[in-house]
Amino acid sequence: MVSLADVEAARERIAAYAHRTPVMTSTLLDERAGRAVFFKCECFQRVGAFKFRGAMNALLQESGEAGVITHSSGNHAQALALAAKLRGARATVVMPDDSPKVKVAAVRAYGAEVVFSASTQEAREAKCAEIMAQTGATFVSPYDDDRIIAGAGTAALELVEAVPDLDTVVAPVGGGGLLSGTGVSVTGRIRARVYGAEPAVGDDAAQSMKLGRVVPSKSPKTLADGLRTGLSERTLAHLREHVTGIITVTEDEILAATWWILTRMKVVVEPSAAAAFAAVCSDQFPADARRVGVVLSGGNIDWPKLGPLLAAFQPT
Amino acid sequence: MVSLADVEAARERIAAYAHRTPVMTSTLLDERAGRAVFFKCECFQRVGAFKFRGAMNALLQESGEAGVITHSSGNHAQALALAAKLRGARATVVMPDDSPKVKVAAVRAYGAEVVFSASTQEAREAKCAEIMAQTGATFVSPYDDDRIIAGAGTAALELVEAVPDLDTVVAPVGGGGLLSGTGVSVTGRIRARVYGAEPAVGDDAAQSMKLGRVVPSKSPKTLADGLRTGLSERTLAHLREHVTGIITVTEDEILAATWWILTRMKVVVEPSAAAAFAAVCSDQFPADARRVGVVLSGGNIDWPKLGPLLAAFQPT
Repeated sequence: MVSLADVEAARERIAAYAHRTPVMTSTLLDERAGRAVFFKCECFQRVGAFKFRGAMNALLQESGEAGVITHSSGNHAQALALAAKLRGARATVVMPDDSPKVKVAAVRAYGAEVVFSASTQEAREAKCAEIMAQTGATFVSPYDDDRIIAGAGTAALELVEAVPDLDTVVAPVGGGGLLSGTGVSVTGRIRARVYGAEPAVGDDAAQSMKLGRVVPSKSPKTLADGLRTGLSERTLAHLREHVTGIITVTEDEILAATWWILTRMKVVVEPSAAAAFAAVCSDQFPADARRVGVVLSGGNIDWPKLGPLLAAFQPT
Repeated sequence: MVSLADVEAARERIAAYAHRTPVMTSTLLDERAGRAVFFKCECFQRVGAFKFRGAMNALLQESGEAGVITHSSGNHAQALALAAKLRGARATVVMPDDSPKVKVAAVRAYGAEVVFSASTQEAREAKCAEIMAQTGATFVSPYDDDRIIAGAGTAALELVEAVPDLDTVVAPVGGGGLLSGTGVSVTGRIRARVYGAEPAVGDDAAQSMKLGRVVPSKSPKTLADGLRTGLSERTLAHLREHVTGIITVTEDEILAATWWILTRMKVVVEPSAAAAFAAVCSDQFPADARRVGVVLSGGNIDWPKLGPLLAAFQPT
């Protein structure tokens, strides 16, 4: 299990590389949520997402010449690529052969080698294994790794240091790395509850918490494309220790939360991040939560998909 | 003419009401511009635009019971509405009867009365005159008013105090209130050149500067919908005194600049604001400019219009 000391060590380790992102507030969003909300803006983190924190923390503990490898089409891929570049290490990213060009270009721009595979989980893992056998590269999971969890936890550590009197903190949950690290930091430092926010169309984390075992994700179609992954044994164990509950939000609520943050706070957030604010605005959210921290996990929007939805959105 | 002392007085006057907005930087945008760029983020100002500064400065110098009136469908309308509300004053806004519902709702949400007119300049002015005759309300121009110019100049004053070694500062130009105030603050405080940024499809400010007389705007169709207005004698006089030149940018350049700021800096800017960054990236921009301040004037995006354009945008 990752401890608060691990998160504090990660914070020291990555301090020279990661941005200390701002905590922002908005009167208009407070009114919408019916409570005071403090947004930890990881969209302003390097590569536009909290993922850089964990990737950098992992790379700073890697010494092998053979470099690192992962399979991801999302923010972790860019984060690992940049972290490796900053360390002068080799990085290979296995991406589905139907990945958007812009994502492939972004990973390459950070200096990583992109290798394509078929888009199934099996094909990606097989391609990774093949390359690891050839090159000796070390696999770095997007979430199932204590170093990644500890790095991810540094965002919430900064948040609770900036606003120590929060009563509740919310982070989105996909694979659970961010929520695990958030739980460790928040419950270790202050008296506050921690909740996860998850798309209702893929409520495997909520189910996993209820049943006490990992319920696999069915890779749901959701606007929150960073939250499609399922928990691991490791992240579920952290959640059971530190997290009070998972709040599920509909696709409409996720889109609305994205729109409200974009138009009122003027911060570019991806739907996976906005899901956490959707939870805070939801009827399911604890009525007695008055000062709520939200980890806005990232700001890498898929514009071809989201642009038309934002254009058609009618606020209510 | 507005002086630096006027801007400094405006700053004191509005200090308790306006946000001191952050100056942000982005390595990726510096690379794109080929120079260091310092963004004064007025998208984070109240009502999402610098306009609040001038409106508040004007309202704090109004004592009449009859309140204020303006005609605008843009940021000035919301700014005047909020400034009046904060002062407990009445505000009336004449809006074209084809105004987007969301803009009408925003003005009403700040407590102003909305009166509709036909959308021509003449109809709007006639409606204003009619109401002023009935109520005694004072007209507050969006730009042709020394109090508005002095208020607008407080943004650049904060910028040059935060980054005193800028060599160039750029602000967008429509009616010229922001550029006038920016010119006063920058040339009064530091040794730096000031440029305006204007859509090429409506280059009336550039023409006005060349010819030394106000060339009327033809209300061009441009993405930068905040920059359709023409200069007044007052703002042209300020520009001639303080501004080195106007750089015109194409619609493609404006869209690209908007996309780059949204996707790289994660700050929501409207195209009228991004036009200033487009100028900094343009071949017309002075090659020796190394440290450039950009006043990002606002972040109120017309999503139905811009969403599909962002979705279709292909970066080069």
